Amino acid sequence: MAESAPSSFLRPYPPDYDVVLQIKNPHLPGRLGRLLTVVGEEGGLVSDIETHFIGRDDMFRDVTIAVYDEPHLARLLTAIRERTEAEVLGVKDLVFDRHEGGKLHCGRRRDLETLEDLRLIYTPGVARVCRAIEREPALARRYTTAGSTVGIFTNGTRVLGLGNIGVLASLPVMEGKAVLYDQFAGLSAVPILVDETDPEAFIETVVRIAPTFGGIHLEDIRTPDCFQIEEALIARLDKPVMHDDQHGTATVLLAAVLSALRETGRGPDPAGWRAAARGMTCAQIGLGAAGLAIARLLMHYGFRVLGVDPSAEAQARLESYGGTGAGLHDAIAAADVVISTTGVVGLIKPEMIRPGQIVLALSNPIPEIFPSEAVAAGAAFAADGRSVNNALAFPGLFRAALDTGAPAITAAMKVAAAEAISALAAPGELVPSPFHPEVHTRVVAAASAAARAEGVPAR
Amino acid sequence: MAESAPSSFLRPYPPDYDVVLQIKNPHLPGRLGRLLTVVGEEGGLVSDIETHFIGRDDMFRDVTIAVYDEPHLARLLTAIRERTEAEVLGVKDLVFDRHEGGKLHCGRRRDLETLEDLRLIYTPGVARVCRAIEREPALARRYTTAGSTVGIFTNGTRVLGLGNIGVLASLPVMEGKAVLYDQFAGLSAVPILVDETDPEAFIETVVRIAPTFGGIHLEDIRTPDCFQIEEALIARLDKPVMHDDQHGTATVLLAAVLSALRETGRGPDPAGWRAAARGMTCAQIGLGAAGLAIARLLMHYGFRVLGVDPSAEAQARLESYGGTGAGLHDAIAAADVVISTTGVVGLIKPEMIRPGQIVLALSNPIPEIFPSEAVAAGAAFAADGRSVNNALAFPGLFRAALDTGAPAITAAMKVAAAEAISALAAPGELVPSPFHPEVHTRVVAAASAAARAEGVPAR
Repeated sequence: MAESAPSSFLRPYPPDYDVVLQIKNPHLPGRLGRLLTVVGEEGGLVSDIETHFIGRDDMFRDVTIAVYDEPHLARLLTAIRERTEAEVLGVKDLVFDRHEGGKLHCGRRRDLETLEDLRLIYTPGVARVCRAIEREPALARRYTTAGSTVGIFTNGTRVLGLGNIGVLASLPVMEGKAVLYDQFAGLSAVPILVDETDPEAFIETVVRIAPTFGGIHLEDIRTPDCFQIEEALIARLDKPVMHDDQHGTATVLLAAVLSALRETGRGPDPAGWRAAARGMTCAQIGLGAAGLAIARLLMHYGFRVLGVDPSAEAQARLESYGGTGAGLHDAIAAADVVISTTGVVGLIKPEMIRPGQIVLALSNPIPEIFPSEAVAAGAAFAADGRSVNNALAFPGLFRAALDTGAPAITAAMKVAAAEAISALAAPGELVPSPFHPEVHTRVVAAASAAARAEGVPAR
Repeated sequence: MAESAPSSFLRPYPPDYDVVLQIKNPHLPGRLGRLLTVVGEEGGLVSDIETHFIGRDDMFRDVTIAVYDEPHLARLLTAIRERTEAEVLGVKDLVFDRHEGGKLHCGRRRDLETLEDLRLIYTPGVARVCRAIEREPALARRYTTAGSTVGIFTNGTRVLGLGNIGVLASLPVMEGKAVLYDQFAGLSAVPILVDETDPEAFIETVVRIAPTFGGIHLEDIRTPDCFQIEEALIARLDKPVMHDDQHGTATVLLAAVLSALRETGRGPDPAGWRAAARGMTCAQIGLGAAGLAIARLLMHYGFRVLGVDPSAEAQARLESYGGTGAGLHDAIAAADVVISTTGVVGLIKPEMIRPGQIVLALSNPIPEIFPSEAVAAGAAFAADGRSVNNALAFPGLFRAALDTGAPAITAAMKVAAAEAISALAAPGELVPSPFHPEVHTRVVAAASAAARAEGVPAR
């Protein structure tokens, strides 16, 4: 099944590996044009050009170019050497530049200026806060970071599309998540690498250090361990626990589905979407972490779900949540909405598509069917995974849980978040940018209201 | 042994529990003077007075007053009510004000401004950094926070002088430590509460999540568990591990002893101190976590050490490091330097003091012998624990270890730090303020040089 894509498949996608070439070029007309022409002929996409020094004979410039990968960069450098007068003095990798020293800092919220400051936040003053919390543990929420800090836990067994790369190599992803928590929701978040692949030992470790955190974010843990781990931690801890690869993704996906309903005339707002969902069938192709969670949330929203997966265990897991296992062809044939999260390029053939279907083929970087193919085959609406950004959901969901003191991130909170996200999508788009100026505050407000409606007291 | 202090004992010490009284007082001459007189008669120490509003009949002021404790505050409030015309509208506790929301934030080192920023630090760019670290784990030091973050681990079993208050109630202390790491050494530090009193389980937990951190700071763990835990972690991890209550304290204490040598004519600089130490005997009274570590570091410096403790196990532990167990009277009689860390008020009687001795009686808030008593009994130099601030050592020691890539914080690094600290003490003082503009950079430089001299390559 997991055939690799021929390179022609890649071409509909723009390159996304940004490098900066430090270029020396003769100080003569036409030489930059020649350089950029050759870069373009080799498939490099030029963005910024910055001139650093104009010498007597030469110009020195930084040219930012997106390529596909390292072999592509090597071909580009050869072409520049052989076909232009430019000399590449160096290649800077913006990604590595931006990771230098790490992306996070855990530091003071307020400067200490005097010895008196020190005596208030450290000994002797701090002892009074300790005693107060000893007497009344609930005060920790107010007087420590335990109420407002999310621990991002991983064991590095399924990192992005890279697989089991180990816990240390996963840290840049965890730091990235923490940066998003901070910037998008104002939350303090701390990566915790648990160097332990046994689920029980992982669970035990998280439980032991859980008092440190207000919420537990699970990330990049392989299937099926992620299900066992999340379930056990939800049962054992009285604080929100969420495996983002499951439920963060499912929340954004539900938002995308709701936008697709709007785009296909099922109503402009949640009332219409909910009514429509109750008469519709979704085919969820792929029942890994994301797929199963998407299926569960769609069922919660009212859709009937047919789930497809080569693993009998995965199908059984779906059925334990009320879904129905099905074969690929049958599921697509019966579905109003087709969602795929399989990683299998070209799995969905144009001839499987039924006119009027909504098709969300989400595998990255190359989907199960290209949106243009799906539409040509009669789909009413089609999109791929690039239009769906996971960063839209988790910061606001955890912020809502911590703000309200909710002991869990419930389906109702995810639905409220999804509706809020969908409502801000521009016409024709499934979701807004994660930089949309209002999206995170709207997610927090909607999910908080849902939490309170479920009986969490406003604090 | 552990008799509690009569209140007259407290009086040589200024009160240190700061509160702000929100006062309404008649807008007439003399009323503020009357109020402050009564406060003074009751033993309250006034610092700031801020006027907020001048009404037709009344003045509204915030008056900051240091008291001893809550009963003292209650007596003061009664006296104000009964003997002045002032009305106390409210009592603000500065300590709790400064803890509101916690003292730390773990956040981004750089803002995300564009989608391109997101693509560099999160997907897809981050995958390249992950792959690079997978291939070459040493790169984590450069491209993640694992190289520059200290984990501050506790199980809350011996917090300040409060005892076993549990892990959650200890968090304000851990946050305080992290604030000091940040402000004094620019390090990122993260409190980790390990809700586990069994030393083996504690060790296992720290080992599992250790990849997250560049250094492991142990804090507020009871004796003797702290010895077992530190020893095991040093053996099992290839990164610096330090129990601050032991070695941070010992480093500052050594600095204090060196200053006392200087004050008593044993030379102006380390060469003289080292020579003097080789001919001198220290009595270390109390062999708990701090006492044992002080004894070990003093021996490393060249002193002969006699150790006193009612626990045979503690004495045996000292002897395993090369010290000599002794009785209280014999040890003091034989010592040139007497150091006590027992928590027993008045343990050292003036008649035990030998003329010319250096006496550092460190128990807080009330020492084993008051410095004035020791000097009256013939001591050449005497001080108590208030003059010795633990915050002087640990930030710079860990910064030096992380900067140099040292796999441990060695005795040589502690000695170098102690000499650097002592060198900045003002005449008559044992150590400088932790706000001294140079002290932390000097500690980092001295300890880094010591680490490199031991063969750690400069990185």
